[in-house]
Amino acid sequence: MVLNICCHASVFTSPPSKTHLQTHLDTIMTDSNTKTETQVDAETKKETIETGDNEKNNIEAGDDEKKSTEKTTTTTADKDKKSTETAGENEMRAVVLNGFGGLKSVKIVKRPIISPSSLADGEVLIRVQLCGVSFQDVMVRQGVTEAPPKTPFILGFECAGVVEAVSDDVEGFKVGDRVVALPDHRAWAELVPVSAKYVYQVPETMPLQEAAAVTQSYTVAYLLVNQLANVTKGQTVVLHSAGGAVGQAVCALLKEIGDVTVVGVASKNKHEAIQSTVTHLIDRASDVHAEVRKVCPDGVDVVFDCQGGEECNRGYNLLKPLGRYILFGSSSIVTGETKSILNVVKSWWQVDKVSPLRLYEDNKGIIGFNLRRLLHHQPGGEERVRNVVQEVFRLWQSGVAKAHIDSTHALEDVTDAMTKMHERKNVGKLLLDLSMEPRPRPVTPAKSKKEEKEKDKDKGSVDKTGESTDKEEKSEKESKEGQEEEVEKSEEKKSEEKDDSLRI
Amino acid sequence: MVLNICCHASVFTSPPSKTHLQTHLDTIMTDSNTKTETQVDAETKKETIETGDNEKNNIEAGDDEKKSTEKTTTTTADKDKKSTETAGENEMRAVVLNGFGGLKSVKIVKRPIISPSSLADGEVLIRVQLCGVSFQDVMVRQGVTEAPPKTPFILGFECAGVVEAVSDDVEGFKVGDRVVALPDHRAWAELVPVSAKYVYQVPETMPLQEAAAVTQSYTVAYLLVNQLANVTKGQTVVLHSAGGAVGQAVCALLKEIGDVTVVGVASKNKHEAIQSTVTHLIDRASDVHAEVRKVCPDGVDVVFDCQGGEECNRGYNLLKPLGRYILFGSSSIVTGETKSILNVVKSWWQVDKVSPLRLYEDNKGIIGFNLRRLLHHQPGGEERVRNVVQEVFRLWQSGVAKAHIDSTHALEDVTDAMTKMHERKNVGKLLLDLSMEPRPRPVTPAKSKKEEKEKDKDKGSVDKTGESTDKEEKSEKESKEGQEEEVEKSEEKKSEEKDDSLRI
Repeated sequence: MVLNICCHASVFTSPPSKTHLQTHLDTIMTDSNTKTETQVDAETKKETIETGDNEKNNIEAGDDEKKSTEKTTTTTADKDKKSTETAGENEMRAVVLNGFGGLKSVKIVKRPIISPSSLADGEVLIRVQLCGVSFQDVMVRQGVTEAPPKTPFILGFECAGVVEAVSDDVEGFKVGDRVVALPDHRAWAELVPVSAKYVYQVPETMPLQEAAAVTQSYTVAYLLVNQLANVTKGQTVVLHSAGGAVGQAVCALLKEIGDVTVVGVASKNKHEAIQSTVTHLIDRASDVHAEVRKVCPDGVDVVFDCQGGEECNRGYNLLKPLGRYILFGSSSIVTGETKSILNVVKSWWQVDKVSPLRLYEDNKGIIGFNLRRLLHHQPGGEERVRNVVQEVFRLWQSGVAKAHIDSTHALEDVTDAMTKMHERKNVGKLLLDLSMEPRPRPVTPAKSKKEEKEKDKDKGSVDKTGESTDKEEKSEKESKEGQEEEVEKSEEKKSEEKDDSLRI
Repeated sequence: MVLNICCHASVFTSPPSKTHLQTHLDTIMTDSNTKTETQVDAETKKETIETGDNEKNNIEAGDDEKKSTEKTTTTTADKDKKSTETAGENEMRAVVLNGFGGLKSVKIVKRPIISPSSLADGEVLIRVQLCGVSFQDVMVRQGVTEAPPKTPFILGFECAGVVEAVSDDVEGFKVGDRVVALPDHRAWAELVPVSAKYVYQVPETMPLQEAAAVTQSYTVAYLLVNQLANVTKGQTVVLHSAGGAVGQAVCALLKEIGDVTVVGVASKNKHEAIQSTVTHLIDRASDVHAEVRKVCPDGVDVVFDCQGGEECNRGYNLLKPLGRYILFGSSSIVTGETKSILNVVKSWWQVDKVSPLRLYEDNKGIIGFNLRRLLHHQPGGEERVRNVVQEVFRLWQSGVAKAHIDSTHALEDVTDAMTKMHERKNVGKLLLDLSMEPRPRPVTPAKSKKEEKEKDKDKGSVDKTGESTDKEEKSEKESKEGQEEEVEKSEEKKSEEKDDSLRI
């Protein structure tokens, strides 16, 4: 396996000599070493408000008996009290990522409020009411996105609210405007300063919740369907993650085109909810390629793939002549709750590289799309996206673009939303509503330290890796002066990835 | 160099294990061995009518003193007489390729006429009036297209004429219909049987000459501009071979879209003729990448490339975010008058393979387009092309699609047209008109055998390769019983390719 990776890697390093992906791989492989204990400490000691994620701290079955250091020292009743605690007058709530990894790295913290005087040139300060949660947030948490900020930082790419203040040099926005914003991280807080380049006026008739649910997902969908794939009547489309917010937006836009056969791929549990939005439904756990062939023996005109990895190779072969394979995500990188280097490598290197001359022979096209890179890192991206957002708002006003909201959660319940996203259980958009009360925690008796130690011993034989090598978590543990070290040792042992022996 | 090629080849053979390109490379490397002398003999002995290409037989300067075996035994006056000779009652003229190679492999021969009774199921017999000549014909002659027929065969992909007979099972065509056809080879003859799948009714108001000039070039252009690139107002486009028939058709369609900046790449000699059709003009002999950057420092939205080879790598880097690189030809394979294995290998293997994940990061797309493969070898291709041809005829009727005719030649002057194409001197379409008289040949005294032998001795020191290894030509020579062997020895020594030591 190692030999195989090396072979591919050497191909990869021929021109272009070093891509973003590689730079990023370097980054994530060194990140945990560069993070200081002080950073982690500052986040976890006093500021932390409990997230309501006790029973969600580990998504693998059988792990719910584990508690974090703090949790074992307080009762559930205490925690509920703490989780509803609001920030003081000079404080605001924010969702902070303490280190790349699992759900327990996600904390609700109190931060000093951002004063209008601290706004940088070109910025707008938004008092946030709603936030969007997307699969990319799960990927950021795991540290598998390109060039993430150094932890700790505030998570989130989408928020909607009211303009609280405007930098002197900003035109087009005034205090009180209802806006939606797509900043580069740091959207999940009560007050968010965002460059005006990424802020959009919400139409008068549009509720903020609709803006929060529609803006990002339909912007992606519109670019995919109308500008990149250029889908026309009579065509056949394969749509991965058909049940997600973007997937449902793509379905709505394809319906508007009319006479498009949509083969949706989604987890079985979503099928009932979305079957009316697609022509055929395929279980994501099945042999998707074979199932698509059953309903479309001649192949398809477009594949919309947000998974990447091996799906790229298979998806290309499904295309009819003049077909286009559109890769707009790489969620296959995520398997277990925390990142696996092996899976990252597999996902990036197992994709067949394609010669343009092969595309010429096959009459096929491959198109990549990455909204975040376009919007935040590429010249002209802001204008392109702004034009599409305007178009999306028009489509909303005409009834074509509709909010597909799965559920709305309190900020303190952010890990509920992230878990639902990770487990691919959401149908449509997941939102955080900052005015919502956190859901009540189930009252369960706290387990004694002794009981847990015994359980961990039993688990030792199951955990083939022997000990956790998650350096970030280790670093956190060390900062807590060695308390309850055993508690976290057997985390993530039931990763979906069976050959996952390499973890960081 | 060999090591380098091997290295790339090994990468190429990883999945997909064997592409058409490779199959083809095998084919062309063995083709000359499998061709029998009898085949060549049959074509060259009695049937041959002289093509009017004496002075064009070698496009390199300084080669015009060489004559073929037959030519040295007849006077130019004799030849003119022969070249205007028409086929007898039971015979028809056809342009036959005797073996892959240079212009002298192209012969006008007399063939028995095709009788309606010999039509296969689904075929239409066309009495041809006009033929189109494209760059692909030059590539076929050299044997650098995929899976060409075994020589000898009739050349040509485009013809226009009147239906002479229709197979019983064919619907939609009747004797006397004016049609244009895009068969898979074998279009350049007085009578051509074509599967009805590749035959199109010419609109009543459309002269056949217009149909011959417009059909193929606008069909390609329409698919490129409107279906693959989906060019919209305000975009910027790089167009290689802007002066060719397809290039000029692309310009016309882009003009119809409006507000498109077109950076045309063409040989300097065409600039004056085409400057009104593009926004900027770049000399094809210059550093195209650098020149495009001068006029479009931010990059471009679309690159239309019909050259392939290294241009692919450079073209990709010119793209703006959300840009598309469209490869619709691989003419860089052709350099000298006959094929060079080294150049074929270079053109196919020097193209960087691209990972879909890189496209995802870059927000770019690569799309291949190959009309012949689509139309003749891919499911659904006939319908796709037929629909576009109908659209092209509508565009002609509305004045958007216009014939861009460079020149019209007699069938006997086919090598004039091929040379002009090869030297990239045509602006717009090259046509053959079967009713045209061949142009008069210049009267030059025939050189004596002795004179030529002496010249060849002198050339020996210039020709570094020592001796021709062009096996097909060798095979032809052997079939002519060793006459005048020396005459052809120093052919093609001034190839554009300086490191061209490998030839077949």
